[in-house]
Amino acid sequence: MLHATFAPAHPTHRQCANAIRILAIDAIEKAKSGHPGAPLGMADMAEALWRRHFRHNPANPAWPDRDRFVLSNGHASMLLYALLHLTGYDLPMSEIENFRQWGSKTPGHPETGLTPGVNMTTGPLGQGLASAVGMALGERMLAARFNTRDFKLVDHHTWVFCGDGCLMEGVSHEACALAGIWKLGKLIVLYDSNGISIDGPIAPWYNEDVCARFTAYGWQVIGPVDGHDSDALDRAILEARGDADRPSLVVCRTHIGFGTSKADTEKCHGSPLGEEAARAAREALDWHEPPFVIPDALYKAWDAREAGKALEAEWKTALAACRQSRPELAVEFERRMAGDVPDDWHDIWRNICSEVKTSAQAAATRATSQKVLEYLVPRLPELVGGSADLSGSVGTLTAASTRFDPTSGQGNYISYGVREFGMGAIMNGLALHGGFIPYAGTFMAFSDQAKNAVRLTALMGLRLVWVFTHDSIGVGEDGPTHQPVEQLAALRATPDILLWRPCDMTETAVAWKLALESRRRPVCLSLSRQNLPFYTRNDDQIASVARGGYVLRDCAGVPQIILIATGSEVSLAVDVAERLEGMGYRARVVSMPCTELFDEQDAAYKKNVLPDACRTRLAVEAAAPDFWRKYVGLDGAVCGMSSFGASAPAARLWEHFGFTVEHLLDMALELLKNRK
Amino acid sequence: MLHATFAPAHPTHRQCANAIRILAIDAIEKAKSGHPGAPLGMADMAEALWRRHFRHNPANPAWPDRDRFVLSNGHASMLLYALLHLTGYDLPMSEIENFRQWGSKTPGHPETGLTPGVNMTTGPLGQGLASAVGMALGERMLAARFNTRDFKLVDHHTWVFCGDGCLMEGVSHEACALAGIWKLGKLIVLYDSNGISIDGPIAPWYNEDVCARFTAYGWQVIGPVDGHDSDALDRAILEARGDADRPSLVVCRTHIGFGTSKADTEKCHGSPLGEEAARAAREALDWHEPPFVIPDALYKAWDAREAGKALEAEWKTALAACRQSRPELAVEFERRMAGDVPDDWHDIWRNICSEVKTSAQAAATRATSQKVLEYLVPRLPELVGGSADLSGSVGTLTAASTRFDPTSGQGNYISYGVREFGMGAIMNGLALHGGFIPYAGTFMAFSDQAKNAVRLTALMGLRLVWVFTHDSIGVGEDGPTHQPVEQLAALRATPDILLWRPCDMTETAVAWKLALESRRRPVCLSLSRQNLPFYTRNDDQIASVARGGYVLRDCAGVPQIILIATGSEVSLAVDVAERLEGMGYRARVVSMPCTELFDEQDAAYKKNVLPDACRTRLAVEAAAPDFWRKYVGLDGAVCGMSSFGASAPAARLWEHFGFTVEHLLDMALELLKNRK
Repeated sequence: MLHATFAPAHPTHRQCANAIRILAIDAIEKAKSGHPGAPLGMADMAEALWRRHFRHNPANPAWPDRDRFVLSNGHASMLLYALLHLTGYDLPMSEIENFRQWGSKTPGHPETGLTPGVNMTTGPLGQGLASAVGMALGERMLAARFNTRDFKLVDHHTWVFCGDGCLMEGVSHEACALAGIWKLGKLIVLYDSNGISIDGPIAPWYNEDVCARFTAYGWQVIGPVDGHDSDALDRAILEARGDADRPSLVVCRTHIGFGTSKADTEKCHGSPLGEEAARAAREALDWHEPPFVIPDALYKAWDAREAGKALEAEWKTALAACRQSRPELAVEFERRMAGDVPDDWHDIWRNICSEVKTSAQAAATRATSQKVLEYLVPRLPELVGGSADLSGSVGTLTAASTRFDPTSGQGNYISYGVREFGMGAIMNGLALHGGFIPYAGTFMAFSDQAKNAVRLTALMGLRLVWVFTHDSIGVGEDGPTHQPVEQLAALRATPDILLWRPCDMTETAVAWKLALESRRRPVCLSLSRQNLPFYTRNDDQIASVARGGYVLRDCAGVPQIILIATGSEVSLAVDVAERLEGMGYRARVVSMPCTELFDEQDAAYKKNVLPDACRTRLAVEAAAPDFWRKYVGLDGAVCGMSSFGASAPAARLWEHFGFTVEHLLDMALELLKNRK
Repeated sequence: MLHATFAPAHPTHRQCANAIRILAIDAIEKAKSGHPGAPLGMADMAEALWRRHFRHNPANPAWPDRDRFVLSNGHASMLLYALLHLTGYDLPMSEIENFRQWGSKTPGHPETGLTPGVNMTTGPLGQGLASAVGMALGERMLAARFNTRDFKLVDHHTWVFCGDGCLMEGVSHEACALAGIWKLGKLIVLYDSNGISIDGPIAPWYNEDVCARFTAYGWQVIGPVDGHDSDALDRAILEARGDADRPSLVVCRTHIGFGTSKADTEKCHGSPLGEEAARAAREALDWHEPPFVIPDALYKAWDAREAGKALEAEWKTALAACRQSRPELAVEFERRMAGDVPDDWHDIWRNICSEVKTSAQAAATRATSQKVLEYLVPRLPELVGGSADLSGSVGTLTAASTRFDPTSGQGNYISYGVREFGMGAIMNGLALHGGFIPYAGTFMAFSDQAKNAVRLTALMGLRLVWVFTHDSIGVGEDGPTHQPVEQLAALRATPDILLWRPCDMTETAVAWKLALESRRRPVCLSLSRQNLPFYTRNDDQIASVARGGYVLRDCAGVPQIILIATGSEVSLAVDVAERLEGMGYRARVVSMPCTELFDEQDAAYKKNVLPDACRTRLAVEAAAPDFWRKYVGLDGAVCGMSSFGASAPAARLWEHFGFTVEHLLDMALELLKNRK
């Protein structure tokens, strides 16, 4: 029994940290791929945090009041898996041995939802840090809402490990500036300052005074401390915790690949050490166990299950006290954290729908979106709105919206400033924390800036709503930098997003309803700047909006041509169909506000809407056209935007780019002439 | 003659500035849209810079050694148009009167190429500032290359106006950190600090210590100065110019909407003042001319034509001296600035092609790309390479690459750090400056972060090359955050980009050749991490690669099925075709590395490659599938990625996601069974 003789009864901090190091080495060697440098470098930081400060219960990774931990430099995934394994999460050694293999719970980069205890999917540098700002914001807002003098339902920290790369990325600037303004004292970032990135020693591309930068944001900056000295780290973390009003950055000086012959070089960053170096590292770390064997004494030293159980039990006592004295508060807290809609959900929507039916008028879909929000925001306290400095234009600010107040923690609206990417990442953090449905708006052209955050939303399956307005050349005079062309295609090509481009008040209301009911898929709304007509629909049609595509205007008998359109172009399609009808043609108009949902309908429904027999199809959308070949095929035609837009009054642009009844009629007649 | 009595012979600085203000007011009122707040607020800054410091020649906006001016807060476009008009550029008053109208040279946001004197298209906040860093870098590199003790061919400043929004955006962090490291002393930013953004007074979302932040980046920070005091601004600019080693940020405290009743509020930001407020502003500014009338004395005070002519003449003397004493230097300088390929261009490519033919082996396309660069970099000094901290992985660093040295200004390679967006914006700046063909690499999944910079590249029609590697689930273990799915669709949907996804050494070499010959359209290369087989082609086929799509493997007679593929999936298509042939079917394989170029071929060629008669078509690409309906229509099929990837060895992923010969064969047989 090697480990019996080796392991002391009371392992040192370093020995505990070395257990992480060895698991990282073993798993990466076995996988023949991975990133050893960072876990080896940050193992002592992890030990100091997780063994001395981190509040969690390995038996319940969903405990609402647990501390959150975000590994922003996600390539250090083995550090996190080792921590979860050692502290007692349901992550057995077999999973560590299966690192980066098909079907394992230990993928190359941490994936939330897959691995118990992983709070966020990370990998794209900087975004973990940025989303942690959202988590800490969520904690602050919920604490202000649910804590009373007698009990605290919400009182936890958000911890981040990040590296140099995270701080180079622009999103770190956007989010951290806000964290300072918001006085998020319970956000504590341990910065793994090792002076090395993939291209080598970083001074030629990263030499900013990080301390001064974060002080400028209003943070408490601590250190530099020796990132391999558990006691020094402990003191620094205590100091960080001591400041309730400022987020803290603890600068930890570390050696990448600590304990190996490749330490302090980029060579240990992104590939296995190799057999020889791995063996030498075991020697250097005074580790004498076979691969994937952890001495019992170390397991014991790491085991957080008892303490975690006690922590959660204490919290449950508070929750019980709340249930006793403030039952309505407890019920609301549990509803919010479960992500359930309020009890009067159906009433709410009945009222909204009846309001839509009554008003029944031409309106910009961004304006209808705002009207829906005016009704929803006072009724759904979980809605946290915001905008990247375009509140008035995108209609996200309602009468019931109050800006988050850093002093009181009150508010349901975030002024994100001109920070689209940070806004997206922070919304992800709010959604990950639980208790919130974030929504926020910007111009659709600037969805570009937020794109990778939107991608992570989809990958994590979070519920939140993007309000992308000014969704075409309808923007007019602001010109091509502000007119989206390719963004619809980009968002539709991204898996697990529902993109809605509604054509009128009714479709906009339905889009919002389904957005809030879509628990696992984020929704992007594509909304017009300009007024769009209102369409009267029968009950069947209204019900069909939720199918993503439906017949808005039909002809008698089998159609000779089908016009497919979304959003602002639907009215053009309807006008063209009327003209065609006047000329004796049978024309159908299909409104297709959400292609993803349409694609998910059964084959019979889809064939009913788009019958095989009619291949004469014309799609109209003021965006990149190729996507629509999916529905019109080789025999149809698409009227779209194959170039960038231009600056001029919108009417002139519609005309120039061919979005007129006359031009579309020509296209339709050409198709009808050539039909097979 | 109102203005004769009004205008003094020697207008004051303020009166000169007011000419800008009035033109902005008049143009925006007439257009009934636009952004008056910023031009009114920055008019004194513009007066101080353009009348006291700015080196330019209105008669020659292309003068290589002119100062560059970037209006990063591009919504202040009328400020720039007023400056160009007043100083004597070819921008008559009729264009000012046509502000934001169809076909005018005065679009809503400045567009380079359209308006003489506009050095960059701006609008998306922060990017002008970031690209200006690239321009200043270009100046530094060219100065180091072409200046001698006897003459200076390159010696100019890069000036930026930016607002609060620009500094909130993450890209400002990425680019400005690098500007500090690079010691770009001739980059001078005048920051319009007016405390207002669209959502109101900014303190709740922007209260960082900007001075400390930029000092942390290694900048000289000057001010705050009164942004309405021309003499104070003059002194600050002089101080900025005095520091040769640090870029300068001049903090200018201004009043947005200066001179109007809406000053210091967001109300004057984004819409016309309105008739009443406009009239009041004329009073307040002591301006008594009719709209669009500028007194002669003011024109005279602004006129920069004489001075500009003299400045350029002086420079031409230096160039003449260079031609005399160092003719080879002058020739090279002029070639570089003209963007012409070197004289031995065709020899270079003959050698590369013969090298490809000789080696003719399986290789990752990223590796072939590097090999091509190994040959090109020493021969094309205009190539400036770089990577967002992935040099080894993306193959951008060659034996002839030397990192830019801030002290000497030497070097042809940029270590951008982990800053994809900043890298894109800086490449745009290098390309805009002239004298360079930038190229840089990152993983394709992270093209997301740079997306809006790529969009601006395309919109501006710049020549540069993105090297996007690791372009599919072939990434393997790093998992879904690192595996692109929707990025190909997003880039293809963006107008005016050529996207190449080559399948082997030959196609990769051709892609690079056409990339460098594509003067007005940027190129994105989509390259594999993994090895791909080499295909032998006849001369016709080799020539056809440049057509973007061609028959790589044909059958005898009319094909019964056409397999279309790109990049790493081409070899699968070839294998499937062979299997089909073995089963008695006639199968053709079309390699389609650049769909944009294929689409531009004449109809006969396209029909020859994809004959109408064969609608049985199967497209294979490990990315979002819908795009391919464009070529396979409703009767074909697409094997693509409809979900995110996963973490596992690549072979396992190819199998799981259906990219196997067996699965594709099944798909092909199913199509053949159902064909019409």
